[in-house]
Amino acid sequence: MDQEQARRWLATAFEEARAGLGEGGVPIGAALYGGGGELLGRGRNRRVQDGDPSAHAETAAFRDAGRQRSYRGTTMVTTLSPCWYCSGLVRQFGISRVVVGEDRTFRGGRDWLAEHGVEVVVLDDPACAALMRGFVADRPELWNEDIGQG
Amino acid sequence: MDQEQARRWLATAFEEARAGLGEGGVPIGAALYGGGGELLGRGRNRRVQDGDPSAHAETAAFRDAGRQRSYRGTTMVTTLSPCWYCSGLVRQFGISRVVVGEDRTFRGGRDWLAEHGVEVVVLDDPACAALMRGFVADRPELWNEDIGQG
Repeated sequence: MDQEQARRWLATAFEEARAGLGEGGVPIGAALYGGGGELLGRGRNRRVQDGDPSAHAETAAFRDAGRQRSYRGTTMVTTLSPCWYCSGLVRQFGISRVVVGEDRTFRGGRDWLAEHGVEVVVLDDPACAALMRGFVADRPELWNEDIGQG
Repeated sequence: MDQEQARRWLATAFEEARAGLGEGGVPIGAALYGGGGELLGRGRNRRVQDGDPSAHAETAAFRDAGRQRSYRGTTMVTTLSPCWYCSGLVRQFGISRVVVGEDRTFRGGRDWLAEHGVEVVVLDDPACAALMRGFVADRPELWNEDIGQG
């Protein structure tokens, strides 16, 4: 896909991640874009804010988009490589593409998705990586809780 | 695990599934039990009721349980074999065991979970199978939407 468009879309997810950090939450953001480039949903990790462990960023963006007949042609954009839970979301619902801000902090299921026909675009964005690196250093117990390593 | 206990726990998930059917929803229910046999959370698919496509039964039960430090020793009980999304949930958070009411209607990620060290107990329960069979026959478009085959 067009790298300029991928970076514009990542900016939406990054805004969500930064807002989450400001709320004392896990700073991961996501956005779901339709095949025509329209924003369908956006969200951020809400474990701390809502006490909801299922509210990973990708799930929050997917929920925000509401019911859709099909996800063919959609793109899930996320500041951090998706965990198994959110990778399963992408595979089950047939989301066509994933744009990953960074996968240095956490690799997740990106290779598994690519093996199963999902287009995976890794931007290796320094701002996304710095945000997560700082968070993991500051709040290791919260990060471990969020990925089930508690 | 003890089959009597598995069947008692499945009854909780089945109550949820039946309640969902009564609400016009997708009739799949789930419950999360702790290592000591205590009920941590329960829920049902809420796609129709809440307009929330992320509210698969297992996710609803996981959400209902709130934040947990660890899922070691927990059991996810579900009336229907978990889809990739909910299988990813089980794997990511280290839920130790899955009790499946039936896997005739939908096989999902149960083999993948077993390969990755999750204990999978399939009860092949006739009431769970009949409930789903009737639903899929009556509302094929809703069922397909719920598993991303729309």
